[in-house]
Amino acid sequence: DMVRAETELGMALEAYRASLREARDRQRRLEKALSNASFELTRAREGVAMGMGSTAEAETSTKVQREGNEQGSGAAEAARQSLDEAVARAKVVLPRPGALYFQLMVGSVNIRMIGEDERWTFKEEYEWFKNVAMQLSVFVTLLVYWVNRPWLDTLFHALVLYYYFSITLREHILLVNGSNIRRWWRRHHYITILLTAVLLTWPPKSDSWHLFRNTFTGFIIYIGCLQMLQYRYQRARLQVLRSLGQTEGTDVVNSDTTQMHWTSSMLFLLPFLFVGQFFQLYIGYFLIALFRTSPSIEWQVPVAGVLYIALGIGNLFTTLRVVYFRYAA
Amino acid sequence: DMVRAETELGMALEAYRASLREARDRQRRLEKALSNASFELTRAREGVAMGMGSTAEAETSTKVQREGNEQGSGAAEAARQSLDEAVARAKVVLPRPGALYFQLMVGSVNIRMIGEDERWTFKEEYEWFKNVAMQLSVFVTLLVYWVNRPWLDTLFHALVLYYYFSITLREHILLVNGSNIRRWWRRHHYITILLTAVLLTWPPKSDSWHLFRNTFTGFIIYIGCLQMLQYRYQRARLQVLRSLGQTEGTDVVNSDTTQMHWTSSMLFLLPFLFVGQFFQLYIGYFLIALFRTSPSIEWQVPVAGVLYIALGIGNLFTTLRVVYFRYAA
Ligand SMILES: CC(C)(COP(=O)(O)OP(=O)(O)OC[C@H]1O[C@@H](n2cnc3c(N)ncnc32)[C@H](O)[C@@H]1OP(=O)(O)O)[C@@H](O)C(=O)NCCC(=O)NCCS
Ligand SMILES: CC(C)(COP(=O)(O)OP(=O)(O)OC[C@H]1O[C@@H](n2cnc3c(N)ncnc32)[C@H](O)[C@@H]1OP(=O)(O)O)[C@@H](O)C(=O)NCCC(=O)NCCS
Repeated sequence: DMVRAETELGMALEAYRASLREARDRQRRLEKALSNASFELTRAREGVAMGMGSTAEAETSTKVQREGNEQGSGAAEAARQSLDEAVARAKVVLPRPGALYFQLMVGSVNIRMIGEDERWTFKEEYEWFKNVAMQLSVFVTLLVYWVNRPWLDTLFHALVLYYYFSITLREHILLVNGSNIRRWWRRHHYITILLTAVLLTWPPKSDSWHLFRNTFTGFIIYIGCLQMLQYRYQRARLQVLRSLGQTEGTDVVNSDTTQMHWTSSMLFLLPFLFVGQFFQLYIGYFLIALFRTSPSIEWQVPVAGVLYIALGIGNLFTTLRVVYFRYAA
Repeated sequence: DMVRAETELGMALEAYRASLREARDRQRRLEKALSNASFELTRAREGVAMGMGSTAEAETSTKVQREGNEQGSGAAEAARQSLDEAVARAKVVLPRPGALYFQLMVGSVNIRMIGEDERWTFKEEYEWFKNVAMQLSVFVTLLVYWVNRPWLDTLFHALVLYYYFSITLREHILLVNGSNIRRWWRRHHYITILLTAVLLTWPPKSDSWHLFRNTFTGFIIYIGCLQMLQYRYQRARLQVLRSLGQTEGTDVVNSDTTQMHWTSSMLFLLPFLFVGQFFQLYIGYFLIALFRTSPSIEWQVPVAGVLYIALGIGNLFTTLRVVYFRYAA
C-alpha cells in the first residue's frame, strides 16, 4: 500500500510539475503576443496622431496612412479598440509582483491570482477585515478612554498603524488583480499611516493630547460605526457584481452599467460620509487653531491638523466625483 | 496587422488559460494523492507504535501486523522513509498562503513560487535587502547622532521598525518556499520589532534616553558592520549550494553534507557574532542597572533591558547550537 501510494504520489507530482512547466511555456508565448499587440497599438496611435503627411519611413508610413485614412470610417478605430480590450484582458492574467510599495514591504513575489473565485474571496476578506478591525477599534477606543492610561493610547495608535499597513498591502494585491479602487482611497490610507505615526509619537502625557483626546475618541467611534454602513454597502455591491457574473468589477476598467443597481444604497450612505468628512475638517481646524493660540505646543499638533484637513478635503472631493460620474452616466 | 495581432493574442491567452486550468486540475489530483499518502503514513506509524497485539479492527490490524513484523527486516521501514520523502517533496510544490502572521498582514494570497530560480532570486534579494538596509542604517545613525534632533531619533526607530516588519514578511515567504531558517532567528526578529516599538515610544528628550544614546549608536554601528560580514558569508553559502545544484538548501529539511563547504568562513564570522551578542547582554545589563538605581525612570528602560537580554541569550545559544551540530556532523 505504501509503495502504491508512493507511485501514485510520484506520478501526480510529475504530472503537476509538467503542467506548471507547460503553463510557464505558454505564459512566455502570451507575453510575446502581448508585446506584439502593444507594438501594433502604439503604431496605430502614432499614425492617428501624425495624421497623413508624416516623417516616418516608407513601409510603415503607408500602413499608418492607410489606417489613418480609414479612421473616419471607423473600421480601424473599432479594430484598435477591440485590440485594446484584448490587451487589457490578457494583461490581468499574467503573473505580476506588486508595485514598489508592496515590493519594499514584502519583496518581489507574484501576487496575481489565477481563479476568479480566489479574487472574489480575497476582496470579500479585505472588506471583512476592514469591518472587524473597525468594530474592534470602537470597543478598544472606549476601553482606552475609560481606563485612561497613557501607554494604552500609544498601544491603540500602534494597532491602528498595523491596520493601515495591512490595508494598503491588501489593496496592492487587489490592484494587481484588477480592482478599480481610485487612487485617492489608497493615498488616503498612506496619509493615514503618516497621521497615525504622528499620533504615536505625540506624548500621551502632554496637555495638548489631553485637550484633543475627547474629540479623537469621538471621531474613532464615529468612523467605526460608519465603517459598518460602508461594509453593508460594499457587500451588497459585491453580491450584485458577482451574481451578475460581471467579472469586469474586478477585471477591466469599465463597469458603469451595473453600478446603477447599488446607487440607491449609496444615497443612503452619503449623508453619513459627508458628516464624517466634515468631522475630519473640523478636527483639522481645531488642531490648527490650537497651534495658533500657543505656537510653542508639540509639533504633532499642527502636523496632525494639516493631515486631517488634507484627508477631509480629499475624501469630500473624491466622493463628490464618484457621485457626479454615477449620475452623469 | 491589428486583426492578426488580436487573433494571436486571443489564442495565446486561451492556451495559457487552458494550461492554468489543467494545472489546477492536476493540483487537485496531487492533493488527493498527498492526503492518501499521509493516511498510509500515519497508519504505518501507528502500526509501529502499537507493535503486535493491538485493539485495531481485523482487516487493518493484519496489514499493520505484517508491516510491524517486517520492520525488523527494514523493508517496511525503508518504504516508509521513502514515502515520507516523497510527501515532503510534493508538499513544497503546492500553492500555499503564508502562516498566520503573514495572513494578518497581507491576507491569504498564494506565495508559493513555481520555479527554483524564482526561489533563489527571492532569497538573494532578501539577503541583499538586509545588507543594504543595514549599511544605510550605519550612515543614518551617524547622521542622527551628529545632527542631534529628538525627532530624528524617532524617525530612525520608525525606519528600523519598517525594516524588521519587511524582514519578517519576507521570511514567511522563504519558509513557504522551503527555507530551513531556524525558529529562533524569526523569533529574534519579532522580539526586535517589540524592542523597536518600545524605543519608538521612549521620549527622545528624556534624561534616560540621553544616558543610553551613545551606547545605542555604537551598537547600531557595530551591528551594521557585522551584517556586512554576515552577508558575505550567506552569499558564499548560497553560491555553494546553488552551484552544487543542491536544491535541498531551500527545499527539504536535511542538508548537512554540503554544509562543511562553508564551515571555515563561519569560523571567521563567529568571534564577531559573539562580540555582538555580548554587546546585547551588556546593554541589557546596563539598562536594568539604570532602572535599579532610579526605579521611577521611564518604563521603557527596564522593558528594553529585558528584551536585549532575551535577544543576547537566544542568539548566543542558537549560534552555539548551530556550531555544535555542524561539528558533531
Ligand atoms: C463613495 C463610495 C461609497 C463609492 O464606493 P463605490 O461605489 O465602491 O465606488 P467605485 O465604483 O469608484 O469603486 C471602485 C473600486 O474601489 C473600491 N472602493 C471604493 N471606495 C473605497 C474605499 N474608500 N476604500 C477602499 N476601496 C474602495 C470599490 O470596492 C471598487 O473595488 P473593485 O473594483 O475591486 O470592485 C466609497 O468610495 C466610500 O465609501 N467612500 C468614502 C470613504 C471615506 O470618505 N471615508 C472616510 C469618511 S470620514
Ligand atoms: C550562526 C550562523 C552564521 C549560521 O548560519 P547558517 O550556516 O546559514 O545556519 P543554518 O544552516 O542553520 O541555516 C539554515 C537557514 O537559515 C538561514 N539563516 C541562518 N541564520 C539566519 C539569520 N540570523 N537570519 C535569517 N536567516 C538565517 C540560512 O540562510 C538558511 O536558509 P535556507 O534554508 O533558506 O538556505 C547564522 O545563523 C548567523 O549569522 N547568526 C547570528 C545572528 C546574530 O546573532 N545576530 C545578532 C548578532 S548581535
